[in-house]
Amino acid sequence: MTGYNLEAIEAAPLKDDVDIVIPTIRSLDFLEQWRPFLQHYHLIIVQDGDPSIKIRVPDGYDYELYNRNDINKILGPRASCISYKDGGCRCFGFMVSKKKYIYTIDDDCFVAKDPSGKEINVIAQHIKNLETPSTPHYFNTLYDPFRDGTDFVRGYPFSLREGVQTAISHGLWLNIPDYDAPTQLVKPRERNASLCRYVDAVMTIPKGVLYPMCGMNLAFNRELIGPAMYFGLMGEGQPISRYDDMWAGWAAKVVCDHLGFGVKTGLPYLWHSKASNPFVNLKKEHKGLHWQEDMVPFFQNLRLSKESDTAAKCYMEISKMTKENLTKVDPYFENLADAMVTWLEAWEELNPPVKNEACDDKPVKKDNGKDVKAK
Amino acid sequence: MTGYNLEAIEAAPLKDDVDIVIPTIRSLDFLEQWRPFLQHYHLIIVQDGDPSIKIRVPDGYDYELYNRNDINKILGPRASCISYKDGGCRCFGFMVSKKKYIYTIDDDCFVAKDPSGKEINVIAQHIKNLETPSTPHYFNTLYDPFRDGTDFVRGYPFSLREGVQTAISHGLWLNIPDYDAPTQLVKPRERNASLCRYVDAVMTIPKGVLYPMCGMNLAFNRELIGPAMYFGLMGEGQPISRYDDMWAGWAAKVVCDHLGFGVKTGLPYLWHSKASNPFVNLKKEHKGLHWQEDMVPFFQNLRLSKESDTAAKCYMEISKMTKENLTKVDPYFENLADAMVTWLEAWEELNPPVKNEACDDKPVKKDNGKDVKAK
Repeated sequence: MTGYNLEAIEAAPLKDDVDIVIPTIRSLDFLEQWRPFLQHYHLIIVQDGDPSIKIRVPDGYDYELYNRNDINKILGPRASCISYKDGGCRCFGFMVSKKKYIYTIDDDCFVAKDPSGKEINVIAQHIKNLETPSTPHYFNTLYDPFRDGTDFVRGYPFSLREGVQTAISHGLWLNIPDYDAPTQLVKPRERNASLCRYVDAVMTIPKGVLYPMCGMNLAFNRELIGPAMYFGLMGEGQPISRYDDMWAGWAAKVVCDHLGFGVKTGLPYLWHSKASNPFVNLKKEHKGLHWQEDMVPFFQNLRLSKESDTAAKCYMEISKMTKENLTKVDPYFENLADAMVTWLEAWEELNPPVKNEACDDKPVKKDNGKDVKAK
Repeated sequence: MTGYNLEAIEAAPLKDDVDIVIPTIRSLDFLEQWRPFLQHYHLIIVQDGDPSIKIRVPDGYDYELYNRNDINKILGPRASCISYKDGGCRCFGFMVSKKKYIYTIDDDCFVAKDPSGKEINVIAQHIKNLETPSTPHYFNTLYDPFRDGTDFVRGYPFSLREGVQTAISHGLWLNIPDYDAPTQLVKPRERNASLCRYVDAVMTIPKGVLYPMCGMNLAFNRELIGPAMYFGLMGEGQPISRYDDMWAGWAAKVVCDHLGFGVKTGLPYLWHSKASNPFVNLKKEHKGLHWQEDMVPFFQNLRLSKESDTAAKCYMEISKMTKENLTKVDPYFENLADAMVTWLEAWEELNPPVKNEACDDKPVKKDNGKDVKAK
C-alpha cells in the first residue's frame, strides 16, 4: 500500500512512544541479548512475588521497577485487583505507563532469527503492525495488504481497503509453543524448534472472531484499548492461573470489534526458551480448562451498547455482564467482575480523564487532554 | 492432532475420488510439467471459445473433453447458464463429474517449489486440507492445528477442537499475484516472485467472514458443496467477466457457514506464469469493481432459512435473494438469478437425487443414494 513508509517506521521505532512492560520474579539477565533492539526503550518492570528479593537489571537500561509494596502503596485498597504470583500482575505496568504503545514480553523469551538467519527486531515489527491499518471486515488471502510488496487481491472491495486503526499486535514464538498442560503432557516431543514453524505473515483477526491471546510477545495501543487490557484476578488466593492473558484477549477483542479497531496476529516471532512444568500448569489451569467452555461462548455472544463508546465504558459493561452471566459457572466470577470495576477505578485515578471543554460530549484521548491542560 | 494419518493421505492421494477440471482455449502442454503429480488423475477439460479448435492433451493423461457443442447437446436450453468466453465455463465440469472431490486449475499455472527447493504436490496438499477438519468457530494462532507437528494453543476450548468437515481448499500462487486491473496498473513491478511470498500456513477462514476466492488453484468437496459452486454468468453476452470465481466463492462461503462446513486457504502454492493484460482486464472487470461494493455486503448480510439444509436448497434461496436485493444495482442480476435456477435444474438433471426410502426426510448424499439404488 502506498502512503505508509515502513522503512521510516523501522528506522525510527518511536522510542518515546513505547514502554516495555516485563513481569518477573528474577534478575533480568535475558535483557543482555535484547540490547540491540530494546535498550533505547524505557522499561516498566513489575516484580512479582517476594518484594524483598533484589531484581538485577543489566546496565544501560532505563527503567522503573514496582514490587508488591510499591503497588500497594500506589493503589491502596485497589491493589487487590492486581494479581499476585501470576504473570497477570503485568497489567499494573500498563496502568502506570503514560505512553501510546505498550510492548510486553516474558523474561524467558529471547531474540529469534528469521529463516535467512537475521535477528528479528520484535519491536520494529510490532510498531509496523500497530501503525498500519487492520482489515477486519473481509479476508485478504495474501495476508497483510499493508506490508511492502503485498496488496489487496482481486475481489477486495475498494471501500474496505482503507482499513481501520490497529489496537493490538499479537506476536508468536519459535521453539516452545504456547500449549496448555494437557497438550504439553500428550505431546512432550513437540518441544523443539522445527515444530514451531516460521510463518512469514501478519494477518488481521476478522471482526466477530475470538482468539487465544498470549501475553508473552504482545503489543498494543494503550490510548485506544488500555482500560480493556486487564489481566484479571489470578494466582495466589484465586482459583485459577494462566488465564490472565486469555481473559484480557477475549475482552479486548470484543471491545476492539465494538469500537471499530483492528487486531493483528503473526510476526514478529521471538524465541521461547523453556516450557513451564506441565504438572504445575495442570494444577494452575484445571479450572480454566473447564471454565473456558463457558467463557468463550460468553464473549462470542456479548453485544455492547451504543453508549459504550470508549474502552473504559465498554469494559464497565463487560464487568456487569460477567457478573450476570458467569457467576452461575462459579462464584469466582463475581469477584472477578468486582475486580474489573476496581481496575477501572484505579486506571482512572492514575490516568484521569481531562475534560475537553470545547467538545465535552466526545471521548477524549488522555494524552491530548493533558496537553490541553498543560497549556 | 492424533487420529489423522497425514502420511497415508499423501501416499494414496485418493486418485479415484478426484476429478481435475481445466477450462482452456488452447492445447494443454502445461500438463507436461504436472505429470508427476496429476497424471494419475482423471481430467475433465472444458474447452472455451471456438469448438472447431483442436485441443492437444499430452499423451498418457486420461480425460474427457467438452466443447461448446457438447455442452449445448448435453444441457439443451439449460446450456445458457454456462458462461462462454470466460473461465467460469469450468463449472460445467463440476456438474458432469461424479467424484467426491474436484480440483480445478488454470492452464497458465505450473509446479512451484517450496523454500527448500522441493516441488510442491498441489493435489496431495489440497486433499490433506479437505480430509482434515476446519475450525471456523475460533481462531488458532498457530494456524492449522491438524497439520503434523502443530496443535491447538492454550486457551482453545476443547469442545471446539473436533472441528467441522472441510468443504473448500483455496490454494495460493507464487510469481504473479491475483490482482485486479487497477492494482495491476498501479503496481507493474510487483510481477516478480519475491513479492509473492511463500507463507507456510493453512488456515480456516472463520465463520461469518467472506474472502475473495480465486479459481486458479482450488479444490472442493462436490458432495458437500457442489451445487453452490456455480461460476455465474460471465463473458460473451454478459456485462462482466473475471467475477466468476468471486461469485462462486461468496455464495459457497455463505452456504458452508450455514451448513456447518469449513473453508481453508493457504498452502498449496503453484506458479502462476503470466499476468493477464491489465487494460483488457479493466474492460472486463469495470462493472464488477463497482458492483462488488454491493455484492459483498449482500452476501455478508445474507441469512439462510433453517429449511435450507442442503447446498442446493441454500443456493435456490440465494438465487431468490439475488433477484430481490441486487436487481436494483443492475438488471443483470435478474438474469444471473435466473441462471442460478437453471444451473440448479441442470445439476439435478445430471446428478439426480435418489430418495433414500428408509430415511426420507433427511438430505441424502448422491453417491450413497446411488449405491442403495444399485443394490
